[in-house]
Formats: sequence, structure tokens, C-alpha cells
Amino acid sequence: MSASILDGKALAADIRRRLTETVARRVEAGLRPPSLRVILVGDDPASAIYVRNKEKAAAKVGITGDVESLAADSSAEELRQRVEAANADPGVDGLLVQLPLPEQIDPAQVRSWIDPEKDVDGLHPENVGLLASGEPRFVPCTPAGCLALLQANGIEVSGRRVLIIGRSLIVGRPLANLLSMKGVDATVTIYHSRSRDLERLGPQAEIIVAAAGQAEFLRAEHVAEGAVVVDVGIHRVDDPAAPKGYRLTGDVHPEVREKASWISPVPGGVGPMTIAMLLKNTVDAHGRRMGVDGDG
Amino acid sequence: MSASILDGKALAADIRRRLTETVARRVEAGLRPPSLRVILVGDDPASAIYVRNKEKAAAKVGITGDVESLAADSSAEELRQRVEAANADPGVDGLLVQLPLPEQIDPAQVRSWIDPEKDVDGLHPENVGLLASGEPRFVPCTPAGCLALLQANGIEVSGRRVLIIGRSLIVGRPLANLLSMKGVDATVTIYHSRSRDLERLGPQAEIIVAAAGQAEFLRAEHVAEGAVVVDVGIHRVDDPAAPKGYRLTGDVHPEVREKASWISPVPGGVGPMTIAMLLKNTVDAHGRRMGVDGDG
Repeated sequence: MSASILDGKALAADIRRRLTETVARRVEAGLRPPSLRVILVGDDPASAIYVRNKEKAAAKVGITGDVESLAADSSAEELRQRVEAANADPGVDGLLVQLPLPEQIDPAQVRSWIDPEKDVDGLHPENVGLLASGEPRFVPCTPAGCLALLQANGIEVSGRRVLIIGRSLIVGRPLANLLSMKGVDATVTIYHSRSRDLERLGPQAEIIVAAAGQAEFLRAEHVAEGAVVVDVGIHRVDDPAAPKGYRLTGDVHPEVREKASWISPVPGGVGPMTIAMLLKNTVDAHGRRMGVDGDG
Repeated sequence: MSASILDGKALAADIRRRLTETVARRVEAGLRPPSLRVILVGDDPASAIYVRNKEKAAAKVGITGDVESLAADSSAEELRQRVEAANADPGVDGLLVQLPLPEQIDPAQVRSWIDPEKDVDGLHPENVGLLASGEPRFVPCTPAGCLALLQANGIEVSGRRVLIIGRSLIVGRPLANLLSMKGVDATVTIYHSRSRDLERLGPQAEIIVAAAGQAEFLRAEHVAEGAVVVDVGIHRVDDPAAPKGYRLTGDVHPEVREKASWISPVPGGVGPMTIAMLLKNTVDAHGRRMGVDGDG
């Protein structure tokens, strides 16, 4: 029997529809629309595509977006000035600096420059700390998307054994803090590159979130019959049989579909949820700045 | 066979000895000694004892300490003014507000008032976030003490399965972030009040840290033969056979001693380590303010 699909594309469309209504209501009430500024350093083609997708998605729900582009050889100081200008700009609600950054710029420093009230990626130490303290202001977009995907499909998280594979700053770590916090209440294990025994830990998990950053890392032998599997990865692998010569795959091997009860597809699972949560964080930031509640 | 003892009392004495030398060296070099300010609100007798112990321990290593006492009916605003005065005082290196606070004062607010550079308890959201991001400035004292106790006894943590029982802000959550960060590299599971299956999860752990806040919560059946057990709890339980009519016990049942390979005693395990780590954080804060390194 094949797993049911955690349809991120459909759920993200629902969320965007609700956000569109919220934005329209606020604009009708006389407020300016929410705004998102993205700062892009350098000319990485993948980053350019991600930024364009964020802009397009923002525009569709009524968020005004703008992109500031800096040359690949920009100094940290030049970037800091752009970040501070956006912090000071009352017309900017949400601000993010697209990753990865050129090597002369330390991403840890950049995270700490962003006004925590505008930090829609949720990566400023203060926002990381508020989440880890169980009082989140902005939840990082991919973890928020994973949880929403489970909850919208009626999958109980409280008291369930969840294995998170990966401990990155943008997925694994904040997801562990999110899922184990009061009110969410999962029993979380964080598996990472120095961990052992995936053969032992995997089959005991009721829910597995694969964010290993490695194509088809999670195999059937790591998964209990009937487990729920969320696949955070996206990779392009050569496939001479495919029309384009490649196919997209995730961190989960296709064979897992036959064993899991639910699985998120790649593409169309976590990816669209991540963007939807970025839009939600931006609308939330706007709401807080304007003194209206989340749906107001 | 009975477990070997993780002797926190002896290790804490070692750490205090090294701190005493560091402080003496700095004073000889012409610096003022490190200073710790403790703010105590109300007249909880247990808190008064804890504060006195911290003061005494600080004085012994050469840290100057002072305690500001506020009446139990003080307002949040009065406390905030005291915190801000200490933040602004260049003679204060470390600052902490003793918990618990009277109910009219929200501890989450208080944590965010303290200057993160003076926050020797490591509970300001920014410091929580830096730890959760793998770049700690101050590690909360009890988690830091637990890790030091393992490392000083040659217990390998990297790649080992660690079960943390409890998800409090001051122990369980920061300890999970500490043990799973790069360079420490444990495979961490956080078990809490909504978790199930301690009978299943406990025996799989190579190391268990019990911070459940419940006397003798961890029983032999939850522990694998040869596991390492760290007991964070301290409770006074009635015991008519004891000279004083009570005895002190931890979150670990005495029967676990027969099964574990290592165990931290109560008292004399984690407790003294917590105070030693508070002193270390204060000396570190002083070193950073004075522009000298940790041992300078």
C-alpha cells in the first residue's frame, strides 16, 4: 500500500488564499499593504530563482516586495549599511538576506544585524531564543511549514516520537525546539552527522522529518511500517530515462512510499509550505507594526 | 556492582581553584576583581539560602558580590529599574535575578531586561538563541555543569544516545541544545511531561539526565545496565529513620545505583557544579569586559 500524500502545494495555496483576504481587509481599512525586502548578494543563479519566486508569491497575496542586489564582492560593511537602512525604513515590515552569502561575509553576523521585529526568517539570535524558550515571535519558515503540514492533515504530534534528521540552523534545530515546546509536545530526537544507529532509531519513530541534505538518505529499513515521513530535501539527480536528463528527488528514497502511512512529495511538499510561511511571517510582522491582530 | 560516582563536589572545588588563580592574576595585573550582582525579590527562605550560598562561593574565588533585596510586593517596574541600574553600572560584570519571582512579575519579561553581556544565568533570549545556534556566549549554569561533569570523568558524549528528562528553560531545553551542538555531538532525545514510553526510551539511552523535578522519578526499569546517569533533582523527603526526620534525594531512585556505570550523587553532584559554573560565567563576563581571555 502506498502512503497518503502530505500535499504541501494545496495547503500552501489555502494559506496564501487566507493571507490574500487578510491583506485585502487591511488595505480596505486604509492601511498600506505589507512589504518584504529581500537583499541578494552576488549572482548565484539558484539564489536568483529563489528570490524571484519569493517576490512573485508575495505579489500574489498583495505584499509589496523589493529586491536590493549587491555585487558578489561587496564587503560586510556595505551589507550592514543596507540592512540598517531597511531596519530604519518604516515602510519595510519584513526583511531577509538571501543565503548563501559570499565567503567574505559571516552569516552569523548578518543574522544579528536584522531588526528582530522584521526578521521574517526567524534566524536572529533573539528570535531563535524566543522559540527555544517556548515563546516564538517568528518561527523559521521551513519548520513552521513542516508542522503546519502535519497539523492540517490531522496528524497528532503531541506525545509522539519524532526523529529529526539534521541539525541545521534553518531546519533541524528550530524544528526540534518547535516540536518539543509546550502545546506541541512531541518527544523529539535529533539525529545528525555524528549520530549512529539510524537502523535502530529510525524504526522507533512515529514521525520522521528528513533534513539530512543528502539525496535519498532515508531508506525503507530506517522507517517503521505506517510511520509519517516529511521530506525536507530537494536535489536534482541525473536520470537518462527522464525527458530532461534529470529528476528531482528529496532526502527520502522512493521505496519509503511503500512503507509510510503519510509522506510529503518532492516537489510539492515542504517547498511550497516554506514560501507560504515566509508570507505569513511578513503579514504577521505587518499586523504587529500596524497594531492589528493576525487576521485583522 | 555499584556505579562509580560523578563527584561534583570535588570537580567544583577544582574549578573554583582555577578561577581563584585567574582572578588573582587579573587583580595582580591591576584590574578590579570580577563582580556579581544578585537581585532578590521577596523573602522566600529557600531563595535566601541559595543567594547566600552564591555570595559565599563568589567571595571565596575573589569575586565581589552584592545582593539587592526588594520587598515581596515590589512592582515589575521597580524591579526593571534595579535591573537597568545594574546594566548601566560599569562595576557590575554579572547580574542575575533570583527565581522564583512573586506572581505579579513575569519572569519572561525580566529575562529580556538583563544586559545579555551580563546575563550570567544565560537566560536572556539572545543568549538562549546563541546557544541554540551553536555559538554560545553564556551557557546556563546547570547544563554547563552537567556537561563538565561528564567530560571531566572521561565520559564520551559524541555520537552517544542521551535521554534528557525534562524540558525546563533552565535545564532540559538548554541542555538539549548544548549536547546536540557541533563539537559536542550527542544524539539527544527530550522526554517531558507529555511524553510516553519511558520504559521504552530509557533503556535505549547510553546517558540519562534526569531533570524531571519529581523525587525518585527515574527507576531501575528505565535504565540500561551500564548507563551513565546524571541526577539534576534535589528533594527533601520525610524519613523517620533519618536523624533529622528527612533525607535528601534526587530525581533518580536509589535502586538505579546498582544498574548504572556512573551516577551523580545528591547532594554533591550537579548542585555544586551549578554554582561553580555561575562563578565561571562571571569570571568570563569580567574577562570579556576587561579585554582579557578566559584564563587571563
